[in-house]
Amino acid sequence: MPRKVDHDQRRRHIVEALLRIAGTQGLDAVSLREVAHEAGVSMGAVQHYFATKDEMLLFALEHWLSLGVHERFTERVRRRLACEATGEPAAVLRAVAAEYLPHDEPSRSDVLVAIAFLSRAAVEPALAAALKPAFDGFVDTLCTLLRNVEGSTDAPAEARRLAALLDGLRLPVLIGALSHEDALAVVERHLSQLPTGHPQA
Amino acid sequence: MPRKVDHDQRRRHIVEALLRIAGTQGLDAVSLREVAHEAGVSMGAVQHYFATKDEMLLFALEHWLSLGVHERFTERVRRRLACEATGEPAAVLRAVAAEYLPHDEPSRSDVLVAIAFLSRAAVEPALAAALKPAFDGFVDTLCTLLRNVEGSTDAPAEARRLAALLDGLRLPVLIGALSHEDALAVVERHLSQLPTGHPQA
Repeated sequence: MPRKVDHDQRRRHIVEALLRIAGTQGLDAVSLREVAHEAGVSMGAVQHYFATKDEMLLFALEHWLSLGVHERFTERVRRRLACEATGEPAAVLRAVAAEYLPHDEPSRSDVLVAIAFLSRAAVEPALAAALKPAFDGFVDTLCTLLRNVEGSTDAPAEARRLAALLDGLRLPVLIGALSHEDALAVVERHLSQLPTGHPQA
Repeated sequence: MPRKVDHDQRRRHIVEALLRIAGTQGLDAVSLREVAHEAGVSMGAVQHYFATKDEMLLFALEHWLSLGVHERFTERVRRRLACEATGEPAAVLRAVAAEYLPHDEPSRSDVLVAIAFLSRAAVEPALAAALKPAFDGFVDTLCTLLRNVEGSTDAPAEARRLAALLDGLRLPVLIGALSHEDALAVVERHLSQLPTGHPQA
């Protein structure tokens, strides 16, 4: 069914244009007109493939999640760690934090796209439902890493806490209210105070 | 100069319409057309008072910050505490957290408006500069509360960490990826593990 393939390709082409706009200029800039212009197609063509903006956003979110945001992030963490030549669990957590907080174009773009989806998900349940696995997936990743930290206790609860901390640092760093370095100092403090399972005073 | 007063009143009237839209439907819904409709004025009138959308957003942010968001939040925390009849510092921090995390229309609206400004501030330096004092103000408030917790150490650093944690919990709660109750359990865990200045194992 070649028609079906073309159809999906065209839809992907359009939402990739949407993601480029959201990732550089934010959700605010995502309009039918801008998406059509960025994709190099007519507004009618966009409307042919997506009946509503929310349908387009939902397809874009699924495309973003399925085709690469996690893989690209993992690859960036791996490159960062290769420079340090260590696989120590705390070092891996530090690399995840450093990469997760915005500091270059790819990481800034990830945050902008995430905010775009989140702010729309607040009023659009279908988007919220599609985003929940992404939240849970990040917590799971942190949980696996925390289990490897010697003496750590209650990794699932600590993963939830660390995920919230990292998410809460992303926006102030993005807008320059907090430097990447100062945000990493907050993370460092947090990691140094993780409960270790040893009796405390 | 009565003309000047009318001019300011009209500008406030327009940005209050903008804030109502952003607070119920998100930034995505904030268009010239929608703002004019919500304010009950013509699109030409909105354009007369604000040359660009960013000028309107900046005025809206200043209006939001100067006229009430902090005061309304403090008043809601006070009402929450009155029900508990305690002024114990940890109880105040818990009340701040419970009120800060979205759970009703006013608190959901605060988060939606904050995201609207933040996502635009990522690409608009004037908005980012206007938002920074709001970030710092929240950290300062938490710092004052943390100083009152018996045995607490390094309140400024802990305030920054707690602010990030609370900010990072707001969005998952807003979109329903985490319940208000589960988010408060994360905060409870965090508060119970604040460094106390006593020697630890």
